[in-house]
Amino acid sequence: MKSKENSSEKKNDSDFIESLTKGVLSNNTSILGKAITLVESERREHQKLANTLLEKCITHRADSIRIGVTGVPGVGKSTFIEAFGKLFINDGKKLAVLTVDPSSSMTKGSILGDKTRMEALSKNPNAFIRPSASGGSLGGVARKTQETIILLEAAGYDTIIIETVGVGQSETAVREMVDFFLLLKLPGAGDELQGIKRGVMEMADAIAINKADGDNIKSAELAATEFKRALHLFAPKASGWTPEVFTCSALKNKGLKEILSCIKNYVAQNRESGFFERARQHQNKNWFKRHLENSLLKDFHENPEISNSLEQLENQVVKGEITPFMAAERLLKTYRDI
Amino acid sequence: MKSKENSSEKKNDSDFIESLTKGVLSNNTSILGKAITLVESERREHQKLANTLLEKCITHRADSIRIGVTGVPGVGKSTFIEAFGKLFINDGKKLAVLTVDPSSSMTKGSILGDKTRMEALSKNPNAFIRPSASGGSLGGVARKTQETIILLEAAGYDTIIIETVGVGQSETAVREMVDFFLLLKLPGAGDELQGIKRGVMEMADAIAINKADGDNIKSAELAATEFKRALHLFAPKASGWTPEVFTCSALKNKGLKEILSCIKNYVAQNRESGFFERARQHQNKNWFKRHLENSLLKDFHENPEISNSLEQLENQVVKGEITPFMAAERLLKTYRDI
Repeated sequence: MKSKENSSEKKNDSDFIESLTKGVLSNNTSILGKAITLVESERREHQKLANTLLEKCITHRADSIRIGVTGVPGVGKSTFIEAFGKLFINDGKKLAVLTVDPSSSMTKGSILGDKTRMEALSKNPNAFIRPSASGGSLGGVARKTQETIILLEAAGYDTIIIETVGVGQSETAVREMVDFFLLLKLPGAGDELQGIKRGVMEMADAIAINKADGDNIKSAELAATEFKRALHLFAPKASGWTPEVFTCSALKNKGLKEILSCIKNYVAQNRESGFFERARQHQNKNWFKRHLENSLLKDFHENPEISNSLEQLENQVVKGEITPFMAAERLLKTYRDI
Repeated sequence: MKSKENSSEKKNDSDFIESLTKGVLSNNTSILGKAITLVESERREHQKLANTLLEKCITHRADSIRIGVTGVPGVGKSTFIEAFGKLFINDGKKLAVLTVDPSSSMTKGSILGDKTRMEALSKNPNAFIRPSASGGSLGGVARKTQETIILLEAAGYDTIIIETVGVGQSETAVREMVDFFLLLKLPGAGDELQGIKRGVMEMADAIAINKADGDNIKSAELAATEFKRALHLFAPKASGWTPEVFTCSALKNKGLKEILSCIKNYVAQNRESGFFERARQHQNKNWFKRHLENSLLKDFHENPEISNSLEQLENQVVKGEITPFMAAERLLKTYRDI
C-alpha cells in the first residue's frame, strides 16, 4: 500500500503517461503494446493511469471502420482475417486485429494458437495483431476491447477487425462496438440452418460461406441460397441495409474482394444517410452507461470499509438476524458517509 | 416535493405501518392486499415505508414450503394450480399463489384472464391468490415477488406456489426463490423434447405431463418415458435428489396426489440432510447481493444532481467532447460528495 502520494510520484506518473501517449500517437508498436497491457490491467492504480492515457488519446483518433467477424470454431476465422486483411493493406489502409474471447482462459487453446496465427499479417508493418485479453468475464473483456480500440485509432489504425468466437453472448458485445458485422459459415446449409442462432443471423450485415473450394463449392452455393432465403424472413434493418450473402475461400483467396466491396458500399451508404454517425453515437451512449454502472459497483465493492461491513451483514442476513433491505440501507449510508 | 419532514408526518407514517403490520400478521386479506401494493410501488417514499413494514414482518414468518410451477402457455398451469392447491388446503395448509410474468404488461392477456382464473380457489378462506405485479423488468418483478413472500409468510401462509410462464428467463428468477421446482409439460414427447430448453429441465425437481386424459393418455405416458430417459443425462443434483416424472390430469383431478407425496418426500429428505436450510441461506445471500446492487444503482440514478449531470455529460460523451471514463469519474465524485 502507498503510504503517501507525493508530488514526485505524481511527476513520475505524468511522465510515464506522457511517454506512453507519445509512443501511441507515433505508432511505436512496442509502446502501443505496453499501453494496451496497461488498459487491460485490473489493478486500481493502473486503471487510473489508463484513464488519463485514454483521455489524451481519444481526441487523436483516426477516422476508422470497425468490422466484427464471427463464426463457430473451425469455420476458418484466422485464415479468413489473414487473407481478407491483406486486401485492406493493399488498399493503403492500416489494419489492427483484436480478439474477443472470454472463454480463452478456460480452454487455453488460443494461447498457443495465437502465436502461430496470422503469421504473414503479423509481419506486415501496416498490420497490428493483438490476441485476446486474458479471459475474465465477457463484460470485462468487452470493456477492455473498447478501450483498446481508442488506442489503436489514436495510433492511426483506420481499419479495425474484431474477431470473436461464435459461442455465447460475445457476438452481442462485439456487435455493440463495430460498424459492420460479418458472419462466417461453413458449407452444408441443411444442417447449418438448424443449429444457427437466430439472434446472430439478425445481427449480421453480411454472411460469407467460407471454405467454398474443391468438393465444397456446390454445397457452399446451396448454403448461400438457403441463407438468402432465411434472411428475407427477418425484419428490415434500421439502417435500411439489406444483408448480403457470399461464398468465399480464404485459403484459395477467392471471393474476398466482393466482400470488401460490400463493406465499402455499406459504409458509403450509411455515411450518406447519417446512419453511420448515429449508430456510433448510440454505441457511445450505451458504452458510457455500462462503464458508469460498472465503475460505481466497482468503487463500492473495492472500498475496504464496505467490504468489511458487507461480510458481517451478509452473515447476519443469511442467519435471518437482519433483512436484506435494512442491511443494504446501512451499507449505502456507510458508502455515502465515507 | 415535501418541504419538510416534521414529527407529525413521521407519526402518521409510523401509525400507518403499525396498522399495516397488525393487519398482515392477523391475516386481514384486505390489508394484506394493500401491503403487497405498497411493496410493489416504485415510488421512493412508498419503498421506505415498505422496507419498514418488511422489517417488522420478517421475524414473524411461517415455516413455509415454496413451490415454483412453470410450463409453456397452454399447458394448463391455472387449472393445475387450482386442483393441486386444494390438496394442500384439504391437508390443513394455508395456500398463497403468486404469478411472476414480466411479459403480462405487453400481452395484456393475463389481466383479463386473472379475474376468472382459479375461481374456486380464490373463494376459499384458506387460499390467497395474487395476480402478477404490473409488468416491468424481470428483475423488478422478481424483487417484488420475493418481498411479497415475506408478507404472505408473516400472514401465516405456509404453502406458497409461484407460477411463471415457461418463456424467457423468469424460470431462473423463480428457481432462486423456491424450494421445489415443478415443470409442467404437454403429452407428445417427440416434438416436445426437441423444443425444450435444457436449462429449464435441469432446474426441475419433478416433471408432470399434464392433460393426460382421454385420447392423450398414451402419448402422455410415452412422453413420461422419454423425459425419464432424458433426465438421466443430467448431472446429479447438489441435494442428491433424483427428479421424478409424473403424468396427471388437473381437469380430471388425476395423478395429483402422487405429486404432492413427491414434494413431501423431497422436503422431508432435504430437511433431514440439512440441504433445505442451506439452500434457503444460499438464496438469501444471492438475494441480498442483488438487492444491494440494485439499491445502489437506484439511489445513484434517482439522485437529482446526478441525473442532471448525467444528461449533460452523456451529450458530451456522444459528441466526443469528453471520454466515458472522465465523465464517469466526475459523476462518481459528485455522487460521493453530495
